[in-house]
Amino acid sequence: MHNDTIVALATPSGSGAIAVIRLSGKNAIGIADRHFRSVIDQKSLSNQKTHTIHLGHIIDGDKTLDEVLVSVFKNPNSYTGEDVVEISCHGSQYIQQEIIQLFLRQGCRMATAGEFTLRAFLNGKLDLSQAEAVADLISSDNEASHQIAMQQMRGGFSSEIAKLREELLNFASLIELELDFAEEDVEFADRTQFKELIERINFVLKRLIDSFAVGNVIKNGIPVAIVGEPNVGKSTLLNALLNEDRAIVSEIAGTTRDTIEDEISIGGIGFRFIDTAGIRDTKDVVESIGIKKTFEKIEQAQVVMFLVGSPQLVVGRDAIEVFKIEIEKIKNKFPQKQLLVILNKIDQITDTDLAELTTSLTPHVKNLIPISAKTGFGVEQLTDSLLNLINTGALRNNETIVTNSRHYDALLKAFEEVQKVKHGLETGLSGDLLAIDIRQALYHFGEITGEITNDDLLGNIFANFCIGK
Amino acid sequence: MHNDTIVALATPSGSGAIAVIRLSGKNAIGIADRHFRSVIDQKSLSNQKTHTIHLGHIIDGDKTLDEVLVSVFKNPNSYTGEDVVEISCHGSQYIQQEIIQLFLRQGCRMATAGEFTLRAFLNGKLDLSQAEAVADLISSDNEASHQIAMQQMRGGFSSEIAKLREELLNFASLIELELDFAEEDVEFADRTQFKELIERINFVLKRLIDSFAVGNVIKNGIPVAIVGEPNVGKSTLLNALLNEDRAIVSEIAGTTRDTIEDEISIGGIGFRFIDTAGIRDTKDVVESIGIKKTFEKIEQAQVVMFLVGSPQLVVGRDAIEVFKIEIEKIKNKFPQKQLLVILNKIDQITDTDLAELTTSLTPHVKNLIPISAKTGFGVEQLTDSLLNLINTGALRNNETIVTNSRHYDALLKAFEEVQKVKHGLETGLSGDLLAIDIRQALYHFGEITGEITNDDLLGNIFANFCIGK
Repeated sequence: MHNDTIVALATPSGSGAIAVIRLSGKNAIGIADRHFRSVIDQKSLSNQKTHTIHLGHIIDGDKTLDEVLVSVFKNPNSYTGEDVVEISCHGSQYIQQEIIQLFLRQGCRMATAGEFTLRAFLNGKLDLSQAEAVADLISSDNEASHQIAMQQMRGGFSSEIAKLREELLNFASLIELELDFAEEDVEFADRTQFKELIERINFVLKRLIDSFAVGNVIKNGIPVAIVGEPNVGKSTLLNALLNEDRAIVSEIAGTTRDTIEDEISIGGIGFRFIDTAGIRDTKDVVESIGIKKTFEKIEQAQVVMFLVGSPQLVVGRDAIEVFKIEIEKIKNKFPQKQLLVILNKIDQITDTDLAELTTSLTPHVKNLIPISAKTGFGVEQLTDSLLNLINTGALRNNETIVTNSRHYDALLKAFEEVQKVKHGLETGLSGDLLAIDIRQALYHFGEITGEITNDDLLGNIFANFCIGK
Repeated sequence: MHNDTIVALATPSGSGAIAVIRLSGKNAIGIADRHFRSVIDQKSLSNQKTHTIHLGHIIDGDKTLDEVLVSVFKNPNSYTGEDVVEISCHGSQYIQQEIIQLFLRQGCRMATAGEFTLRAFLNGKLDLSQAEAVADLISSDNEASHQIAMQQMRGGFSSEIAKLREELLNFASLIELELDFAEEDVEFADRTQFKELIERINFVLKRLIDSFAVGNVIKNGIPVAIVGEPNVGKSTLLNALLNEDRAIVSEIAGTTRDTIEDEISIGGIGFRFIDTAGIRDTKDVVESIGIKKTFEKIEQAQVVMFLVGSPQLVVGRDAIEVFKIEIEKIKNKFPQKQLLVILNKIDQITDTDLAELTTSLTPHVKNLIPISAKTGFGVEQLTDSLLNLINTGALRNNETIVTNSRHYDALLKAFEEVQKVKHGLETGLSGDLLAIDIRQALYHFGEITGEITNDDLLGNIFANFCIGK
């Protein structure tokens, strides 16, 4: 399909033990072969079987650039569906550059972002939603987002859509056939079966569309606003939460823990914590601005964690009453947000005080969690509560979850058209008008899997990939 | 040889299109096989041929960690000489960690720095100097250091030593045999041939030892002190030099060009430029300290580039005389250093002035180079001069060059012992005493190639490697 051969570094830039340089296209094997000298004999890469590895040197004139392992993949049995060569060289950046420059001089072109995957799509190795899942997979940094991307890459999502699309296409053809015989008033398409199909499609689309809420949250992390004055123990709490899942988080570089606005993986799901200044009521103008900012931050969150130091509440009845008012304020202002009220530092108050506090607050708070971030008491209950707020049922049951907003848009549009078809069927709409709505629905299905594309769309999608993939 | 199986990430950490995880050891294939599900059929990795690649999934219980390509290398045909499996997975750090953690749970051990190469050495796939060249190769960042490392890795250096060692070993055996027949006064070892061999060894050792000067310089870069007041155009000159070789330097990340203390690759050789404050003579105490620091920096350099703005010299006869005195001062203080005097900004003076300046300065300066860093005039002549100062003849002739100070030490010691043997032969030293010196020389030869090692030595060498190599 493509006459030009592309080349790129496939491994991260930087120094490591090895680096992998990837070539794909009509001349990939020929170009590599011209500069490859096998260690063992005079073997030529072109004569080798697909999926074999060859030890040798990359030669540029009389210079030996490196001792390498060359992997040969012959079309169509490769990632891109074209001839592919992967050169595993030593991790020196000098060597990487020299080898890439050599192949560029030999007629390769530098691959653009995602171009290998774009070719895989264009050559029918992946559908569009699978290709998009590749980028999601690479950027996945917790179990949930990884699992969803993996499922999507394996076709879970698009195969469901593709199957429905095919069935719908069948009916579309039958109904269009009826139009050719319009004068004879025949019905090739069994309306009962068709209604049943539309119901099924309706059901699947609704489930997929609904899944986007959780999918989006899993992909981008769940925003949690922590409301609380300084010194109520926000940092200690975040550290305690972090420890719950240390094995996963600590190994991942780039997770900065310098600020309290941090992303933490709990039970395989990412939570983004947003620090706020608290909402202590005041006449002070400056502090009022602080409260306004806090409300703005809560606006962005899906969950509100209201943290308070228990000792502050037991100093007198006033403190509890003020706190209750603050809780009511948040509940009134944000009735849609999930609210967790956390009594911290319970190690510093007596059991009697705690019992009294709990009794006093329970009528006002659905989720009241006493903890000691310092000793770790109650932290597990807190993480359970956080996870329970998220409807991860679909995730646990290995159901298909939509995470991509492009897919979500297409699904919404398809759903709209399906409603029209459904309505048309119920009201006995004529075949020609019905056919138009069905075609529209098919169009939006096709957008997801990539049967319907255009250059702009492809450009947008693959521009988000890294180079070399 | 090793019962445990080691695992490590072989590609740089960070996100890229793909990452490679490497396993080596007795159970490498078995462990990988347990968690690999082939895409095509039920194939088992254990039944596959060496140097073949297999598409499939890495499975952890009921979780699919990734779609991967698995490369199988069977002992002894692998880098380490053991069974090796390389897993090419998607470049997500989460996935990398999950796969490595899985294999650790399955009985693999995390590889220590350089452990793959250590095993290659212990299994006889590489000698010690070749193993050391692997690390040099990975850290090579210019053509010269790359070429030397490449040559050493291909055995150029150690095969020469190994050959001489074998010949010497032969004579050692013959002379020791004579000792068994001491009463019969026989000479199994032909003394004329032996003298000839010693001469040959002497010659080779001397050449190798001498090559270290240039080897060291190539490996570490050639330190060049730029002496010159502010505003004589040091930065402009460095940028101009940089442009001469833009293709190589600009592509290599990590080359900071923020400070004037910079490493620039010219003609494939690294030059390290050290900025100084100049040596303008003064009574001012503070400025005197500046001069002292300049001299300290010149001390570290191999080449001194004395840069002056030509317009400053033509304002009056005084300026030239002061400049001449400064030149003499450097020449007297550092007679061993190569000195280049550079007249910059010649685009700002007339040709007559330039001719006069040159005539006046030539008797005092061996290397006088008029340039305009701004227009680029003369910069090529300057780079040629810099390259000429370095004896790169050996490099150009593809001769063996010693860059490793451990080898250098061993060569020096071997040379010393060979001198003793030579002297012994000339003075008719008895066979038993001769044998001791020969054994000592053999010992030091063996240190280079790794016939003689100990755990400390190996530990030191491989600790400098990166993990995964």
